Amino acid sequence: MSYERPSVKRLHAYTPGEQPQGGRIIKLNTNENPYPPAPEVLAELGNIDPHALRRYPSPMADEFRRVAARLHGVNPENIIATNGGDELLRLALTCFVEPGEAIGVTRPSYSLYPVLAAIHGASVFEVPRPDDWSLPGNFAAELNRQKVPLGLVVNPHAPSGRLSSVDELAAIANEFKGVLLIDEAYVDFVDPSLNHSTLPLLNQFDNLLILRTLSKGYSLAGLRFGYGIGHADLIAGLHKVRDSYNQDVISQALAVASLTAQQYARQSWQKVRDERARLAAALSQRGMSAPDSEANFLLVDVPGAGQAEVLYQALKQQGILVRWFDQPRLRDKLRISVGSDAENDALLQGVDQFLQAL
Amino acid sequence: MSYERPSVKRLHAYTPGEQPQGGRIIKLNTNENPYPPAPEVLAELGNIDPHALRRYPSPMADEFRRVAARLHGVNPENIIATNGGDELLRLALTCFVEPGEAIGVTRPSYSLYPVLAAIHGASVFEVPRPDDWSLPGNFAAELNRQKVPLGLVVNPHAPSGRLSSVDELAAIANEFKGVLLIDEAYVDFVDPSLNHSTLPLLNQFDNLLILRTLSKGYSLAGLRFGYGIGHADLIAGLHKVRDSYNQDVISQALAVASLTAQQYARQSWQKVRDERARLAAALSQRGMSAPDSEANFLLVDVPGAGQAEVLYQALKQQGILVRWFDQPRLRDKLRISVGSDAENDALLQGVDQFLQAL
Repeated sequence: MSYERPSVKRLHAYTPGEQPQGGRIIKLNTNENPYPPAPEVLAELGNIDPHALRRYPSPMADEFRRVAARLHGVNPENIIATNGGDELLRLALTCFVEPGEAIGVTRPSYSLYPVLAAIHGASVFEVPRPDDWSLPGNFAAELNRQKVPLGLVVNPHAPSGRLSSVDELAAIANEFKGVLLIDEAYVDFVDPSLNHSTLPLLNQFDNLLILRTLSKGYSLAGLRFGYGIGHADLIAGLHKVRDSYNQDVISQALAVASLTAQQYARQSWQKVRDERARLAAALSQRGMSAPDSEANFLLVDVPGAGQAEVLYQALKQQGILVRWFDQPRLRDKLRISVGSDAENDALLQGVDQFLQAL
Repeated sequence: MSYERPSVKRLHAYTPGEQPQGGRIIKLNTNENPYPPAPEVLAELGNIDPHALRRYPSPMADEFRRVAARLHGVNPENIIATNGGDELLRLALTCFVEPGEAIGVTRPSYSLYPVLAAIHGASVFEVPRPDDWSLPGNFAAELNRQKVPLGLVVNPHAPSGRLSSVDELAAIANEFKGVLLIDEAYVDFVDPSLNHSTLPLLNQFDNLLILRTLSKGYSLAGLRFGYGIGHADLIAGLHKVRDSYNQDVISQALAVASLTAQQYARQSWQKVRDERARLAAALSQRGMSAPDSEANFLLVDVPGAGQAEVLYQALKQQGILVRWFDQPRLRDKLRISVGSDAENDALLQGVDQFLQAL
């Protein structure tokens, strides 16, 4: 017999991007960073004290919070360390949303949001993005009208890479009556000449929660380390509902080393931006354009009805994974992570092979 | 203003045992293993591939599940890896318990259970243990009467260390209409001559879920690695509600190495048992008796009204941490983790000093 709650029985679990283990696969499907983590992170692996492993870790990730606070110009009580950004999303639902209430998102968005909502017994209220993937102007008003307690905006936007400005976000935080979570999973890849930073908004708004992760910008998707930055009251609430020791001792040590190695990280972001520009230009030359992206991926138009899926399959045959979404407005596109120069060359070659065979 | 759900606002977060960082503290308060993890675990730290860190980990912890399945004579679909045993407890609530329903526990029990229930919006139905800390004979009947969907039994029992027999547990699994989670956090320390194993029950009952952890038996409290063993349908439900990548790539690799190093682990369990017997006898000689414990701790009677708390404070002054619970039936006792021989000697010396000062 089944013991699952009816809502769990109905649940469709999140489908992670394909994660083939080993082999000569070129993975441009899950927005991983093509460069390895900083040498300081790897060196830290050699410094782990065996007796630290047998003891419980710091329950609050104290040292990490100090380092992150210093980096962002806030206080440790404005920081919570989480098991990947995903845990922060779940904690925000647990802390701020009653089962039966809704979360507010733009459409399309990160496909994990509705899964987490369903697990929590919450529904999803979606406001469609305009054709240019910008933030809907009525987002806050619509969420208020629906009495939504938690709004989620991924910025730069996934899967388009479009960056919304700090002013737009400030306007939403100001108007919205619930907690606004800005999912900045990809913010490290924003061109620094844009001077984009939502951190100053923390001084103005007590309902703003910023999600960061080491998965992309710091090449540590394998480590599962994210964190939240927000008003001390929001953060205190999230601490109350997390598992009591949610981050292990090795992850805490490596996360500290990683955030500390800023110069290395910034160099990898610049390399990703350079390759992003090169890849976008090269694909555009081949008739496959993408909107301007400030993330480490491109949402590429594939001309010809049904051709995006065909190209996705053709690349897969060649050992190159990209992401195709079987969803309205996305079926004619591919989301391609920016890889290393060699990986991007291989992708372009794969695309050429496909075009020649047409 | 506060954005927390009313139930979260009312919430008292779990109080972890004191975790002083560094210093010359003798920690006998959180049931950590006094011996370091196996050399193979530490060696594995040197084998971590930098490119594995930048990629997402195996979402299902495939290799770990294979190794754990082989060890326990089950299949990988009977195993779920979790971020400490605590995550398994949370997932069981999420999967099997509607907010508003209750979980069933014995009293006293692990103090995290009511905290997790409160976070989930569930209540706690408690059945008191008799004076000898055995399982209440009416446990299943009472839980059925209350229509409780999830029962939790920690065995060996915390904080007494008392082991209930497989037959007693089978009787409960048979009678109980919900999911029975047997929290075996301390089962590795059970005397092997007792031949205690609940694993054969998995062939008889589809409502049985066994919790295991590497925190105690494998000296890896710092790693946050636990797992569940149960019927494939129960495990599939738990997978649906967990965070999509809940275990990082380093933890997965170290957990595999740790379970594989069985001989080392078994030696550490025997050392803990030997010291448990020595410590129990030495404390008993000093007038402080404890019920027979099959865990890595003793629940020690401290004669004299209010003296348990006084002794707890006196030991703390000497840099020796033990656990005192400010709870009915426990205020006249201390829970003392079995340490290394040197740590246990220091504890006994601390007790002698206290007794001489009386």
